[in-house]
Amino acid sequence: MIAEPTELPGLAAADSLSLLRQHAPLVHCMTNDVVQAFTANTLLAVGAAPAMVIETREALQFSAMADALLVNIGTLTEPRAEAMLAAIASANDAGTPWVLDPVAVGALAFRTEFAMGVLALKPAAIRANASEILALAGQPALGRGVDSADDSRHALPFARRLAADYGTLVAVTGRVDFITDGDRAWSVTDGDAMMTRVTGTGCALSAVVAACCALPGDRLQHAAAACRFMARAGRLTARETAGPGSFAVGFLDRLYALRGEYLQ
Amino acid sequence: MIAEPTELPGLAAADSLSLLRQHAPLVHCMTNDVVQAFTANTLLAVGAAPAMVIETREALQFSAMADALLVNIGTLTEPRAEAMLAAIASANDAGTPWVLDPVAVGALAFRTEFAMGVLALKPAAIRANASEILALAGQPALGRGVDSADDSRHALPFARRLAADYGTLVAVTGRVDFITDGDRAWSVTDGDAMMTRVTGTGCALSAVVAACCALPGDRLQHAAAACRFMARAGRLTARETAGPGSFAVGFLDRLYALRGEYLQ
Amino acid sequence: MIAEPTELPGLAAADSLSLLRQHAPLVHCMTNDVVQAFTANTLLAVGAAPAMVIETREALQFSAMADALLVNIGTLTEPRAEAMLAAIASANDAGTPWVLDPVAVGALAFRTEFAMGVLALKPAAIRANASEILALAGQPALGRGVDSADDSRHALPFARRLAADYGTLVAVTGRVDFITDGDRAWSVTDGDAMMTRVTGTGCALSAVVAACCALPGDRLQHAAAACRFMARAGRLTARETAGPGSFAVGFLDRLYALRGEYLQ
Repeated sequence: MIAEPTELPGLAAADSLSLLRQHAPLVHCMTNDVVQAFTANTLLAVGAAPAMVIETREALQFSAMADALLVNIGTLTEPRAEAMLAAIASANDAGTPWVLDPVAVGALAFRTEFAMGVLALKPAAIRANASEILALAGQPALGRGVDSADDSRHALPFARRLAADYGTLVAVTGRVDFITDGDRAWSVTDGDAMMTRVTGTGCALSAVVAACCALPGDRLQHAAAACRFMARAGRLTARETAGPGSFAVGFLDRLYALRGEYLQ
Repeated sequence: MIAEPTELPGLAAADSLSLLRQHAPLVHCMTNDVVQAFTANTLLAVGAAPAMVIETREALQFSAMADALLVNIGTLTEPRAEAMLAAIASANDAGTPWVLDPVAVGALAFRTEFAMGVLALKPAAIRANASEILALAGQPALGRGVDSADDSRHALPFARRLAADYGTLVAVTGRVDFITDGDRAWSVTDGDAMMTRVTGTGCALSAVVAACCALPGDRLQHAAAACRFMARAGRLTARETAGPGSFAVGFLDRLYALRGEYLQ
Repeated sequence: MIAEPTELPGLAAADSLSLLRQHAPLVHCMTNDVVQAFTANTLLAVGAAPAMVIETREALQFSAMADALLVNIGTLTEPRAEAMLAAIASANDAGTPWVLDPVAVGALAFRTEFAMGVLALKPAAIRANASEILALAGQPALGRGVDSADDSRHALPFARRLAADYGTLVAVTGRVDFITDGDRAWSVTDGDAMMTRVTGTGCALSAVVAACCALPGDRLQHAAAACRFMARAGRLTARETAGPGSFAVGFLDRLYALRGEYLQ
């Protein structure tokens, strides 16, 4: 029998945040062209260290040195796909955990083929919206773009199955986030709709999930904590900003100032 | 006889804004490396939806699904040029309107050849500064970089001729913007010099023009309204910010909060 | 005998700032994918003009027209390396000064080979952190990522030797910046640790160094002044902002508002 998801306890999130600040994981980001700066700034704000390395021979060398690897297919190209495959192989050889963000999978053939192919390459975690999870699970998806038209709760059973089938964690995010290893599942209910008006908040979350996969201890808890960091910073920021421009700025300030007690 | 340009009425701009928010067009952006995030955030702030897709086989698939396509040659490369040509062909087959932003055309041979070549591929609109319009029209241009050394009014007759020759709309922007289909012409006199101190405001305007080209009704009015949205948000923001950093932030907030009555 | 570094006088920095605003150099930026927008906005804020041009045949054409060329290897790829070599050759032919930012040199083989190879191509200046200077000098470096684990003072003798061997200037930056031509050396002691929490501040500094290399007069003074502009704007901004998001915004405002008297 499968347990219902329960809200991630604040103390667990605080514990993960403390570990993240202590270890400051170096995250090798192979991500899309649009969100590079915001992803790097998010990692720096939360206490991790970003490095973007993309040429094939460098990527395979670097993923073995980094603490985690992020593979985001938002602006996938042929050379980038080749470099990502090399980096994943090298990360797996070195024991570097890697995280898949399958942006817009299902909508476009090239990236769908790529994403389905790398599922078998043992990602430590997958972070996606509901439409993307449905597409990975072979279900008909509704979205045309990157925002999910489906509800994350509807996608949860498919997320569980993906996690179980591929021995990975799946974070399916939306108005509520669910983070599951197939058996256990945490939910995170913070967040704010303004986050959908700033490009790259989901992509940056995937980078923080990657950073958290490098921490010692319970990886499922840490991945859920990553969702909580971002959601809580988003909710606190939305209260005090007037639009998406100041939201994006305040969000980085909030992440930087995040402390365990804000996560309770 | 050709009519003198007249200032776009506020009610027309408000009508276009209302349609934009209602339709939330999905804009396929093939744009330069520098302005990707600002372009996406501008589209999100104004109520449209961005998606950057650049690999040739994905670009041709996506431009048929999107509501509009933006082609910006600011950091044109050989592979990007090939992908853009595929996307334009596919957009034309599918009836997706596409917009050309011929960044720095005239100054550099490769992009000039590309831009002159795609003029014949039925763009729905061209958004450019005066130097770029002069270059497209085969006139000697003055600019070395992306900012226009010429006056948009001086470029207006050439913009009209381009629009007439190629059956397109031309928005030539500067201290005053002119938007013409060769016969009719609107002017937009808002805006602020601070917009030239933030990278990508012109490129982001081209993306908003593309979004507006997807709306039902009078495309010339909608394209002029796009100029008005950006110019008005710029003017309102410049009054309340101290420099280009806070201007860029406040500008997105202002676009997000833009309402019909602010356009009067 | 080699002189000890002395703090750059405020009047000299003010003089360089005045020249920079007067000449508004056009900087051809061939830089990494992460920092493009921040680099462009930094140049615009300080009074220079950025242009990113990357296709080989355009890059070689443009570097001959620009006032300075920046070569930053943060996300070096094979095609980008080829384009950079073409641009450097063309810059040297035309007398355009070019600046090397050897991001993470030493850590990765491909970029290390590239950076060592272009050292002989007469860069006007090199801007790097201590780890990168040690790597260029063939010393063992400590850093895994882009942030320097070594102290800039420790790297100063190696910076002097590099400058002397290659007939260039070297700016080695960190808590204290040193700028040397091998013989003379200036120090700049401003700056704030918050600058390490915003991606691209070092890369943007390299772009400002490039802009300053285009100015008439004492190039060593101008390059040191570039370090001072950034450091002083950083220190002033850090006092009045709460985190890295608002810091990055305020920093651009401060650069824009920078006046000679703030540099004393």
